[in-house]
Amino acid sequence: MIDLQEVHLSAVIDAVRANQRFLCISHVAPDGDAVGSLLGMGEILTMLGKEATLALADGVPDNLTFLPGAERVVSADGVGDVYDCIIVLDASSPDRMGNVYREDAHGKSPLVVIDHHVTNTYFGDVDWVEPRCAAVCQMLVYLAQRLGVSLRGNLAEDLLTGLVTDTLCFRTSNTTADVLGAATVLMENGAQLSAITARTLNNKPFRSLKLWGEVLPGARLAERVLWVTVAPEQLAAAQATAGDLELSSVLSAVAEADISATFIQKTDERKAPVVECSFRAKPGFNVSDTAFALGGGGHPAAAGCTVPGTLEKAVPPIVAQLQQARAQQATGQ
Amino acid sequence: MIDLQEVHLSAVIDAVRANQRFLCISHVAPDGDAVGSLLGMGEILTMLGKEATLALADGVPDNLTFLPGAERVVSADGVGDVYDCIIVLDASSPDRMGNVYREDAHGKSPLVVIDHHVTNTYFGDVDWVEPRCAAVCQMLVYLAQRLGVSLRGNLAEDLLTGLVTDTLCFRTSNTTADVLGAATVLMENGAQLSAITARTLNNKPFRSLKLWGEVLPGARLAERVLWVTVAPEQLAAAQATAGDLELSSVLSAVAEADISATFIQKTDERKAPVVECSFRAKPGFNVSDTAFALGGGGHPAAAGCTVPGTLEKAVPPIVAQLQQARAQQATGQ
Repeated sequence: MIDLQEVHLSAVIDAVRANQRFLCISHVAPDGDAVGSLLGMGEILTMLGKEATLALADGVPDNLTFLPGAERVVSADGVGDVYDCIIVLDASSPDRMGNVYREDAHGKSPLVVIDHHVTNTYFGDVDWVEPRCAAVCQMLVYLAQRLGVSLRGNLAEDLLTGLVTDTLCFRTSNTTADVLGAATVLMENGAQLSAITARTLNNKPFRSLKLWGEVLPGARLAERVLWVTVAPEQLAAAQATAGDLELSSVLSAVAEADISATFIQKTDERKAPVVECSFRAKPGFNVSDTAFALGGGGHPAAAGCTVPGTLEKAVPPIVAQLQQARAQQATGQ
Repeated sequence: MIDLQEVHLSAVIDAVRANQRFLCISHVAPDGDAVGSLLGMGEILTMLGKEATLALADGVPDNLTFLPGAERVVSADGVGDVYDCIIVLDASSPDRMGNVYREDAHGKSPLVVIDHHVTNTYFGDVDWVEPRCAAVCQMLVYLAQRLGVSLRGNLAEDLLTGLVTDTLCFRTSNTTADVLGAATVLMENGAQLSAITARTLNNKPFRSLKLWGEVLPGARLAERVLWVTVAPEQLAAAQATAGDLELSSVLSAVAEADISATFIQKTDERKAPVVECSFRAKPGFNVSDTAFALGGGGHPAAAGCTVPGTLEKAVPPIVAQLQQARAQQATGQ
């Protein structure tokens, strides 16, 4: 069984018990672990007789609205000013909270950070960070158990959804025996694994396939680094958005590559061209250092960043950095 | 915890304890569960001080030779005549043993069948069949525990490989809490999940991706039937073979389709054009009737056939049949 950060977990438990009115926040561009942990935290607080406002700057993505409690989630205009305590889930730095957190109104309340990113900046008054957990939803299994809250029902379904989506159904390299153990407990408490995978991972829009047809002919492989680029014209041709790509797990399954990357051409708020970069590494390799050096963050096995420029200018030097990092890591093994 | 067939499990344990020289066999065209359970059974018998010959009519496939003990496996010419007991793993009927079992030589020895297929014909003297187990490797976790054999080391790695490959890394609908529980125990005993998925499921050649880039632009969706066609020129452009396609599970994850199909242009022995058809159906839909009507076969969820003709001529009427079948099945629900 995993050694938890007991001092910090105890501080979270104290904060939960001592307060009544909570604002819970997860990160912008929310994924399954963001939504699952937010809804799960809401369930835990409700079962303890607390009041909780659940907030996401970008709302619940369409493919996760099936989750029990999703209708409770508010965006910025549903967030009040006064809370006893603010709990932030799955966010490695304060900017990840987006506009649902307002320093002027919320800065006075104690801030509790619950996260599993190794890159967490410890920006809370209480910071419970467990990089060895594959998802914040895994951490909430332990929190619920410590608080004596039953996992049965909605809570199990919310938490297993985050665990399944963050590990791509237990395929990521951080899937430890403890991850499977937590998933086992959630299934024993009624969570339906195959229904969750059917509604999340096995639920791809047809336009994703058309987009793959646009970008895969341009897939490149050199020095065991594999990459694809996505231009706005390709998105238009497939009638798709960048969110439809979801190609990372396919790329990271390619035998001849240790590191894979996707590069998507976007524009920032000032209409300047930027490239959104997403990296994956196989076990034994690390992409978080490269992402961090480029102003991004993430885990050793999955990281990303956004850099200024066009695909033509920005991609070649980043690919070279990834190839260099891979070569060094291969030598070091 | 699963209710095991205790009477039959006890009979297996008695047969293991009472005998010394074993012949262990798994099925022709072996998959991960066949090889994993065969090697696992070999480990169990060795640890109990027994002698075991491990036999596969078709040998160990290349992608599974990394498994500990794979070098012990023999084909027909390595099988002797006289054994105290024969243990058959993951085979639903005697023909699945292939030529490593010879009735004249082996028919005198007691035959122990260990299987998880609901279609098992109970052809042994002892038949331990657990259709609620997702893999025979899951059954061997319970057998090892009952026999007091440590799972640590090679045994854990062999058994987790079978469990992972038969459930596509816990994505099949028969992945219960007991499956995850067994996998947890195996990881706690040292099996490396991410290394196993990396070497089995996440081990796609780059040419598969290039082939997807060739065929996905032609993916079509109509009346909730999704299909792709593969012409010889496309295989040539990707420097790939038909076996590199492996697109079925991607197609069957598309939200807007209930039935998916791949059509590959081939030629038969007389150089006449034929189309190899592979169908998948989502839960609640059935493609085996259509495949059967076209001279093929399979299961409700996955079936196929080979028909004469070219893609241009053969595909449209088959797509129409699939669309008609789907419409009837949707009405019947």
